Amino acid sequence: MRRVAQVVAVRPEKLDEYRELHRAVPEPVLDRLRRCHIANYSIHLLGNRLFAYFEYHGDDLEADLALMAADEATREWWRLTVPCQTPVPQAAPGEWWATAEQVFLME
Amino acid sequence: MRRVAQVVAVRPEKLDEYRELHRAVPEPVLDRLRRCHIANYSIHLLGNRLFAYFEYHGDDLEADLALMAADEATREWWRLTVPCQTPVPQAAPGEWWATAEQVFLME
Repeated sequence: MRRVAQVVAVRPEKLDEYRELHRAVPEPVLDRLRRCHIANYSIHLLGNRLFAYFEYHGDDLEADLALMAADEATREWWRLTVPCQTPVPQAAPGEWWATAEQVFLME
Repeated sequence: MRRVAQVVAVRPEKLDEYRELHRAVPEPVLDRLRRCHIANYSIHLLGNRLFAYFEYHGDDLEADLALMAADEATREWWRLTVPCQTPVPQAAPGEWWATAEQVFLME
Protein backbone atom coordinates (compact mmCIF):
# COMPACT_ATOMS: atom_id res chain seq x y z
CA MET A 1 0.00 0.00 0.00
CA ARG A 2 1.22 3.48 -0.69
CA ARG A 3 -0.07 6.76 0.66
CA VAL A 4 -0.87 9.56 -1.76
CA ALA A 5 -1.27 13.19 -0.69
CA GLN A 6 -2.43 15.76 -3.19
CA VAL A 7 -3.16 19.48 -3.18
CA VAL A 8 -5.43 21.67 -5.28
CA ALA A 9 -6.74 25.22 -4.77
CA VAL A 10 -10.44 25.87 -4.30
CA ARG A 11 -12.08 28.90 -5.86
CA PRO A 12 -13.31 30.99 -2.89
CA GLU A 13 -16.67 31.68 -4.51
CA LYS A 14 -17.18 27.93 -5.04
CA LEU A 15 -16.20 26.78 -1.57
CA ASP A 16 -19.72 26.35 -0.21
CA GLU A 17 -20.71 24.45 -3.35
CA TYR A 18 -17.67 22.19 -3.03
CA ARG A 19 -18.47 21.40 0.60
CA GLU A 20 -22.10 20.74 -0.25
CA LEU A 21 -21.24 18.44 -3.16
CA HIS A 22 -19.01 16.35 -0.90
CA ARG A 23 -21.73 15.78 1.66
CA ALA A 24 -23.34 13.38 -0.81
CA VAL A 25 -20.86 11.97 -3.29
CA PRO A 26 -22.75 9.67 -5.72
CA GLU A 27 -22.38 6.01 -4.83
CA PRO A 28 -21.15 5.04 -8.35
CA VAL A 29 -18.25 7.49 -7.91
CA LEU A 30 -17.29 5.89 -4.61
CA ASP A 31 -17.67 2.43 -6.14
CA ARG A 32 -15.29 3.31 -8.93
CA LEU A 33 -12.74 4.69 -6.44
CA ARG A 34 -12.86 1.40 -4.54
CA ARG A 35 -12.56 -0.63 -7.73
CA CYS A 36 -9.49 1.45 -8.53
CA HIS A 37 -7.88 0.24 -5.28
CA ILE A 38 -8.29 3.54 -3.44
CA ALA A 39 -9.21 3.42 0.27
CA ASN A 40 -9.27 5.60 3.38
CA TYR A 41 -9.75 8.70 1.27
CA SER A 42 -10.29 12.02 2.97
CA ILE A 43 -10.13 15.64 1.80
CA HIS A 44 -9.28 18.51 4.12
CA LEU A 45 -9.58 22.26 3.70
CA LEU A 46 -7.42 25.08 5.05
CA GLY A 47 -7.60 28.55 3.58
CA ASN A 48 -8.05 28.08 -0.15
CA ARG A 49 -6.20 24.77 -0.30
CA LEU A 50 -7.69 21.27 -0.44
CA PHE A 51 -5.48 18.49 0.85
CA ALA A 52 -6.43 14.95 -0.19
CA TYR A 53 -5.06 11.82 1.45
CA PHE A 54 -5.72 8.29 0.24
CA GLU A 55 -4.21 4.84 0.40
CA TYR A 56 -3.55 3.04 -2.87
CA HIS A 57 -3.65 -0.73 -2.73
CA GLY A 58 -3.14 -1.52 -6.42
CA ASP A 59 0.07 -1.85 -8.37
CA ASP A 60 -0.57 0.57 -11.25
CA LEU A 61 -1.89 3.94 -10.16
CA GLU A 62 -1.67 5.43 -13.66
CA ALA A 63 -3.83 2.64 -15.07
CA ASP A 64 -6.33 2.96 -12.24
CA LEU A 65 -6.57 6.71 -12.72
CA ALA A 66 -7.25 6.08 -16.42
CA LEU A 67 -9.99 3.64 -15.40
CA MET A 68 -11.53 6.35 -13.27
CA ALA A 69 -11.38 8.86 -16.12
CA ALA A 70 -13.19 6.36 -18.36
CA ASP A 71 -16.12 6.03 -15.97
CA GLU A 72 -19.20 8.07 -16.93
CA ALA A 73 -20.38 8.65 -13.34
CA THR A 74 -16.91 9.88 -12.40
CA ARG A 75 -16.76 12.17 -15.43
CA GLU A 76 -20.16 13.61 -14.52
CA TRP A 77 -18.91 14.17 -10.96
CA TRP A 78 -15.80 15.95 -12.24
CA ARG A 79 -18.02 18.20 -14.37
CA LEU A 80 -19.37 19.46 -11.04
CA THR A 81 -16.16 19.56 -8.99
CA VAL A 82 -13.54 20.75 -11.47
CA PRO A 83 -15.07 24.25 -11.84
CA CYS A 84 -14.62 24.61 -8.06
CA GLN A 85 -10.86 24.10 -8.29
CA THR A 86 -7.69 25.45 -9.84
CA PRO A 87 -4.30 23.70 -9.83
CA VAL A 88 -1.69 25.09 -7.45
CA PRO A 89 1.48 26.69 -8.88
CA GLN A 90 3.48 23.56 -7.94
CA ALA A 91 1.35 21.28 -10.15
CA ALA A 92 3.24 19.62 -12.98
CA PRO A 93 2.09 20.35 -16.56
CA GLY A 94 -1.18 18.49 -17.10
CA GLU A 95 -1.57 17.72 -13.39
CA TRP A 96 -4.80 18.80 -11.66
CA TRP A 97 -4.27 17.66 -8.08
CA ALA A 98 -0.53 18.20 -7.42
CA THR A 99 1.16 15.26 -5.70
CA ALA A 100 3.07 16.03 -2.52
CA GLU A 101 6.29 14.34 -1.40
CA GLN A 102 6.07 12.08 1.64
CA VAL A 103 8.74 13.15 4.13
CA PHE A 104 7.70 11.12 7.18
CA LEU A 105 5.78 7.98 8.03
CA MET A 106 4.90 6.28 11.26
CA GLU A 107 2.68 3.29 10.42
CA MET B 1 -11.17 7.05 15.36
CA ARG B 2 -10.90 10.50 13.94
CA ARG B 3 -8.64 11.79 11.21
CA VAL B 4 -6.59 14.92 11.81
CA ALA B 5 -5.00 16.95 9.01
CA GLN B 6 -2.69 19.83 9.85
CA VAL B 7 -0.65 22.37 7.93
CA VAL B 8 2.48 24.31 8.77
CA ALA B 9 4.94 26.25 6.61
CA VAL B 10 8.54 25.12 6.29
CA ARG B 11 11.37 27.66 6.15
CA PRO B 12 12.92 27.19 2.69
CA GLU B 13 16.47 27.33 4.06
CA LYS B 14 15.60 24.58 6.57
CA LEU B 15 13.88 22.21 4.16
CA ASP B 16 16.81 19.84 3.67
CA GLU B 17 17.38 19.73 7.41
CA TYR B 18 13.69 18.98 8.03
CA ARG B 19 13.74 16.14 5.50
CA GLU B 20 16.95 14.73 6.98
CA LEU B 21 15.63 14.87 10.55
CA HIS B 22 12.53 12.91 9.53
CA ARG B 23 14.55 10.08 8.01
CA ALA B 24 15.42 8.98 11.53
CA VAL B 25 12.88 10.17 14.08
CA PRO B 26 14.07 9.03 17.55
CA GLU B 27 12.24 5.92 18.74
CA PRO B 28 11.16 7.52 22.06
CA VAL B 29 9.35 10.22 20.06
CA LEU B 30 7.50 7.58 18.03
CA ASP B 31 6.72 5.65 21.22
CA ARG B 32 5.17 8.69 22.79
CA LEU B 33 3.06 9.35 19.69
CA ARG B 34 1.73 5.79 19.88
CA ARG B 35 1.07 6.07 23.61
CA CYS B 36 -0.90 9.22 22.81
CA HIS B 37 -3.20 7.16 20.55
CA ILE B 38 -1.80 8.51 17.29
CA ALA B 39 -1.42 6.08 14.36
CA ASN B 40 -0.89 6.05 10.61
CA TYR B 41 0.93 9.35 10.77
CA SER B 42 2.47 10.77 7.61
CA ILE B 43 3.80 14.19 6.64
CA HIS B 44 3.82 15.44 3.06
CA LEU B 45 5.52 18.40 1.43
CA LEU B 46 4.42 20.60 -1.44
CA GLY B 47 6.03 23.98 -2.08
CA ASN B 48 6.70 25.45 1.35
CA ARG B 49 3.79 23.70 3.06
CA LEU B 50 3.89 20.57 5.19
CA PHE B 51 0.66 18.56 5.43
CA ALA B 52 0.35 16.10 8.29
CA TYR B 53 -2.24 13.35 8.42
CA PHE B 54 -2.82 11.07 11.38
CA GLU B 55 -5.52 8.95 12.93
CA TYR B 56 -6.43 9.58 16.54
CA HIS B 57 -7.75 6.60 18.45
CA GLY B 58 -8.10 8.19 21.89
CA ASP B 59 -10.97 10.16 23.36
CA ASP B 60 -9.17 13.31 24.54
CA LEU B 61 -6.81 14.79 21.97
CA GLU B 62 -6.09 17.87 24.08
CA ALA B 63 -4.97 15.70 27.00
CA ASP B 64 -2.86 13.51 24.74
CA LEU B 65 -1.19 16.54 23.15
CA ALA B 66 -0.40 17.79 26.67
CA LEU B 67 1.12 14.39 27.44
CA MET B 68 3.32 14.72 24.37
CA ALA B 69 4.42 18.21 25.40
CA ALA B 70 5.40 16.85 28.82
CA ASP B 71 7.74 14.24 27.33
CA GLU B 72 11.42 15.15 27.42
CA ALA B 73 12.33 13.23 24.22
CA THR B 74 9.49 14.94 22.38
CA ARG B 75 10.54 18.38 23.66
CA GLU B 76 14.09 17.70 22.53
CA TRP B 77 12.74 16.69 19.09
CA TRP B 78 10.69 19.86 18.86
CA ARG B 79 13.81 21.90 19.69
CA LEU B 80 15.14 20.57 16.38
CA THR B 81 12.01 20.72 14.24
CA VAL B 82 10.30 23.93 15.39
CA PRO B 83 13.05 26.22 13.98
CA CYS B 84 12.35 24.63 10.58
CA GLN B 85 8.72 25.76 10.61
CA THR B 86 6.48 28.79 10.83
CA PRO B 87 2.71 28.71 11.37
CA VAL B 88 0.53 29.46 8.33
CA PRO B 89 -1.64 32.60 8.32
CA GLN B 90 -4.72 30.45 8.98
CA ALA B 91 -3.37 29.13 12.30
CA ALA B 92 -5.42 30.10 15.34
CA PRO B 93 -3.69 32.13 18.08
CA GLY B 94 -1.29 29.80 19.90
CA GLU B 95 -1.63 27.10 17.24
CA TRP B 96 1.56 25.80 15.58
CA TRP B 97 0.24 23.20 13.15
CA ALA B 98 -3.09 24.63 11.87
CA THR B 99 -5.91 22.10 11.83
CA ALA B 100 -7.74 21.67 8.52
CA GLU B 101 -11.45 20.98 8.14
CA GLN B 102 -12.43 17.55 6.86
CA VAL B 103 -14.79 18.03 3.90
CA PHE B 104 -14.94 14.46 2.55
CA LEU B 105 -14.41 10.93 3.75
CA MET B 106 -14.61 7.56 2.05
CA GLU B 107 -13.58 4.94 4.58
